[in-house]
Amino acid sequence: MSDKINRVAFVGAGNVAWHLSQAFQKAGCKITEVYSQNIENARALCEKLNSGTAKNELDFSESKAQLIVISVKDDALTDLVKQLKLPQVTQPIVVHTSGSQPLSIISDSLPSAGVFYPLQTFSKRKEIDLSRSPVLIESNKVKDKGLLLELAKRISNYVEEVDSSARTSLHIAAVFACNFSNHLFAIAKEILNKKGLNFNLLEPLIEETVYKAFSHSPKAGQTGPAIRKDEEIIQKHLLALKENASYQQLYELLTRSIQRHA
Amino acid sequence: MSDKINRVAFVGAGNVAWHLSQAFQKAGCKITEVYSQNIENARALCEKLNSGTAKNELDFSESKAQLIVISVKDDALTDLVKQLKLPQVTQPIVVHTSGSQPLSIISDSLPSAGVFYPLQTFSKRKEIDLSRSPVLIESNKVKDKGLLLELAKRISNYVEEVDSSARTSLHIAAVFACNFSNHLFAIAKEILNKKGLNFNLLEPLIEETVYKAFSHSPKAGQTGPAIRKDEEIIQKHLLALKENASYQQLYELLTRSIQRHA
Repeated sequence: MSDKINRVAFVGAGNVAWHLSQAFQKAGCKITEVYSQNIENARALCEKLNSGTAKNELDFSESKAQLIVISVKDDALTDLVKQLKLPQVTQPIVVHTSGSQPLSIISDSLPSAGVFYPLQTFSKRKEIDLSRSPVLIESNKVKDKGLLLELAKRISNYVEEVDSSARTSLHIAAVFACNFSNHLFAIAKEILNKKGLNFNLLEPLIEETVYKAFSHSPKAGQTGPAIRKDEEIIQKHLLALKENASYQQLYELLTRSIQRHA
Repeated sequence: MSDKINRVAFVGAGNVAWHLSQAFQKAGCKITEVYSQNIENARALCEKLNSGTAKNELDFSESKAQLIVISVKDDALTDLVKQLKLPQVTQPIVVHTSGSQPLSIISDSLPSAGVFYPLQTFSKRKEIDLSRSPVLIESNKVKDKGLLLELAKRISNYVEEVDSSARTSLHIAAVFACNFSNHLFAIAKEILNKKGLNFNLLEPLIEETVYKAFSHSPKAGQTGPAIRKDEEIIQKHLLALKENASYQQLYELLTRSIQRHA
């Protein structure tokens, strides 16, 4: 095998495959095959790429790909790896793109295995600049790792080696920082809309909060009644939330957590 | 009184007064006096403005200001309003800048009262573009309200009338969307740092989350194991958080809240 990955096949044609395959193509790779259970999805991606054979069976025994990227839902991953038919002679590296699955889910059954995890949230409709998104690489074999790191650096300026245990922590951190924050935004929007106020009112404040969190640190930038221990305001807010016990409970728990964390 | 506010005095020389006085000055106002309990702080702001008399007593009976802006800590506000000495003949409008205090805290004792609340987080060291920050106005008198709205529009492109009850809701929403989110960022940073990972890894993902929340809606953009009802991942994360009962409890409560809210 050459010292660079130039031919890549995709298993899966969802959001991650959609963006990753285009980034690989721009970085000089040829996309050789795209598999999807639903062949229409595979065809759509091949058409977008103007490259690759669309297929809906997992037989890659004739593939010339040096890398096979499995980008499917977590719960489909194990079964899919078992069904994968690889070439007998050339041995492509097989990676998954999941933040929450260990390397072992592939490496237990395949000799050349890895993880290629782009830390970003994708949707097909929206173009995204992958060069700013971190890509996290894992592999047990030094040579494979080198090849994956080289490929990752062609599409992103922020490439790191992260093992499965650290990747789990990263996923938990992302759940707190993104999924849970987003839910707090949804609660804020609901509270505002009830009073006829627009959620956009909060945009400059949220942007400034994010800016401060990364230019200093979120702990140093903590503001609000909780950190000020302003019990009068806290009690006023809890009273105002009395019609929604679950928001009240969240308010109380987050307030006490800020105070313990200070 | 003219149909425009052109002369403004400040009571308080903290972060809000620091930025608001400069914005007013740029908008054509003369800052006539700056009061601070600690006269050094008042002097520093007058020096920054190259305008105004620094003072540490609340006697404004000789002031030519058409507007007196009280920008002090919430718990100092009531006492301070009582001590304020105003001119006998001309009647300046007196406003506070607090998101969490009602208009009545001023209007109960003063005939020309209002609220001038810039919805932003300030620190003296950092310049901020107030034109993008919402300014929320409240006043019981039609004429005063008109004057305050006109002044607000000179410094911000996003001016709204918001009464005290709606302002409380806005403050609660800001606590959820900013203070609480920021705390989740702090938790994420702690989880990452424990594994030797950099918090910056999450910056593109958080920025994309905020972008999506405002370009679509936070509810429509909700992702992650909670909304997918991926119990396997949720249980794995809860287990990984077992050493911190309080983070575990937050994870569980936010997860169930996302699921109920779906």
